[in-house]
Amino acid sequence: MDTPVLLLDLDALHRNIARMAEFSKTTGCRVRPHVKSHKTPRVARMQIDAGAIGVTCAKLGEAEAMVAGGITSILISTELVGESKLARLTSLARHANITTVFDNRTAAAAVAAAAKQADVTLGALVDVNVAQDRTGVEPGTPGADLAEYVAGLPNLRFEGLQGYEGNLQHVYDPGERRTRCDEAMGKLLATRRAVEARGLPVRIVSTAGTGTCAFAAAHEGVTEVQPGSYIFMDADYLSVGGLPFELALTLLTTVISRPRRGVAIVDAGFKSISTDAGMPRVSGDGGLVYKPHGDEHGRLESPNDDVLPALGGVVQLVPSHCDTTVNLHDNFFVVRDGRVQAIWTIAARGRVS
Amino acid sequence: MDTPVLLLDLDALHRNIARMAEFSKTTGCRVRPHVKSHKTPRVARMQIDAGAIGVTCAKLGEAEAMVAGGITSILISTELVGESKLARLTSLARHANITTVFDNRTAAAAVAAAAKQADVTLGALVDVNVAQDRTGVEPGTPGADLAEYVAGLPNLRFEGLQGYEGNLQHVYDPGERRTRCDEAMGKLLATRRAVEARGLPVRIVSTAGTGTCAFAAAHEGVTEVQPGSYIFMDADYLSVGGLPFELALTLLTTVISRPRRGVAIVDAGFKSISTDAGMPRVSGDGGLVYKPHGDEHGRLESPNDDVLPALGGVVQLVPSHCDTTVNLHDNFFVVRDGRVQAIWTIAARGRVS
Repeated sequence: MDTPVLLLDLDALHRNIARMAEFSKTTGCRVRPHVKSHKTPRVARMQIDAGAIGVTCAKLGEAEAMVAGGITSILISTELVGESKLARLTSLARHANITTVFDNRTAAAAVAAAAKQADVTLGALVDVNVAQDRTGVEPGTPGADLAEYVAGLPNLRFEGLQGYEGNLQHVYDPGERRTRCDEAMGKLLATRRAVEARGLPVRIVSTAGTGTCAFAAAHEGVTEVQPGSYIFMDADYLSVGGLPFELALTLLTTVISRPRRGVAIVDAGFKSISTDAGMPRVSGDGGLVYKPHGDEHGRLESPNDDVLPALGGVVQLVPSHCDTTVNLHDNFFVVRDGRVQAIWTIAARGRVS
Repeated sequence: MDTPVLLLDLDALHRNIARMAEFSKTTGCRVRPHVKSHKTPRVARMQIDAGAIGVTCAKLGEAEAMVAGGITSILISTELVGESKLARLTSLARHANITTVFDNRTAAAAVAAAAKQADVTLGALVDVNVAQDRTGVEPGTPGADLAEYVAGLPNLRFEGLQGYEGNLQHVYDPGERRTRCDEAMGKLLATRRAVEARGLPVRIVSTAGTGTCAFAAAHEGVTEVQPGSYIFMDADYLSVGGLPFELALTLLTTVISRPRRGVAIVDAGFKSISTDAGMPRVSGDGGLVYKPHGDEHGRLESPNDDVLPALGGVVQLVPSHCDTTVNLHDNFFVVRDGRVQAIWTIAARGRVS
């Protein structure tokens, strides 16, 4: 096995999927896992086999890869704009049950027109800004107005609402995270009531991620959650208190130089492991600290040279952000009991459009 | 054309390649461009056609992609360690002229043994730590000792020295950059003299990047430079004073939401454009500022809503770091006179091992 390479612990993966399935059974809240983390139809299939009702995709390209891999129920959680995107979207809707989201009338009318022309029907959710001030219509009346507009468009099947409190996923303190999630759910459910007051049934209220799904599911009226990272976890999510998931993903890297005492240079840098959410950690109890040193090198340092691995030695790094690290790699090396059992292609890697 | 997508300005690319060729002619210093920036055999071929003597690769996987693309003279600038790597290395050496680098005896002996067993000969450079304290043997006597050792190993053809002052590439002030580069070259050339004093001819002294190649080439005894980013440039290199190269690479992104006045949300985030060297810039004179807002979104803000593009509008982002941004994408969309002329596959994308 040549390094650097992503190692996926199959047993830990199975346990994380089982824990989410158990959560769904216990709470009655449906789970539509976000594939942005794994980008791999095979893993999506495992999630669905464990009870997930479909998958969530950030981008159309991810959805195309999932449909090609046999997944047939897909929510695209990001607004799609532009003629070429709409052609791909309506084409995909011939092969799968596709739902997408809207935060304004112009985009909704364009999608409806494209769907009508292609003679397909798309599920439609209104995207509500519940916390993170990214996309989304404002809660309450503006949300209800847009819902009414969307429900009146041809070839769109209005299903309900989406509201994603992405900014709360990494609030480390569970108490603060719950309080702020409750506020966000308050906005989302107020919008639900405003929509229903217009006589429109709301079948789907889709929200939350790994950090907030337990809090969101406690609100009656939330029908489903969209967690992604729970299957792998990462250094950042391991710092988030109160989550019942375990680390399943590491990057194996080799020491290629021991230029001086107290320093080991490894073969993984910015092109192998992401740093947008901080520095990766070194797995194990050795107290080692990793820093990227350019695109293809990293540095392990210790005042005690003896704890550093020798030339040719390997260490496992814990990504700080699993999603962006997975997106750098073409394959998972799937490991059980210390042996590689399989290589899984990350089919939707790089599908950003 | 679906966004986000990398746009490569073909005329600017040609001009950058021509400027480097002119530099080589004027100074007499050979150029062995680093493919880490473009990862594309087609671009390597353009560089060689313009006079480059071969290419430099950071990783064996890049070298494999280059050989598959018809490039036959390759320097791998990073130490290779481990049985599997050496099997691939010696296999590759059957199809191309491969030179690699060493900073210790153990690794050199292992490569020599593998080369002997495979009945191939590899070029060998001693990697000297001239400035950045990453890999590399110390200059002077330690470098000469290792050179003598490597020259005595079977199936290695000792060619000379490599020393890369990577930490100086982005020193913005040309005066300071030159002074510190001169120091680094002093160490490298002192090592050259120490090696020659042992009776070993030094045919290659390979060094420098886009930021320092002009300064390095002014030193007699430096035989070649390894610039990579000059063909594209990026926001960081555009801040480096005194470089004669122009921007050839941008990321096209579309506004997918205008949730409130003064804010436009675009479809490019951490998975489309890298931030390890700071934030990308927005191309043009509008004074717009881009910030990533998650993996697949970015945010343009302005107190003056009128300068923001409308829903469906596009902007070009200037990557802060071309190498790590290119590594996120599978293709360049090659543009001339505002039209897409070709799509070039980034064959070595993700080849980190």
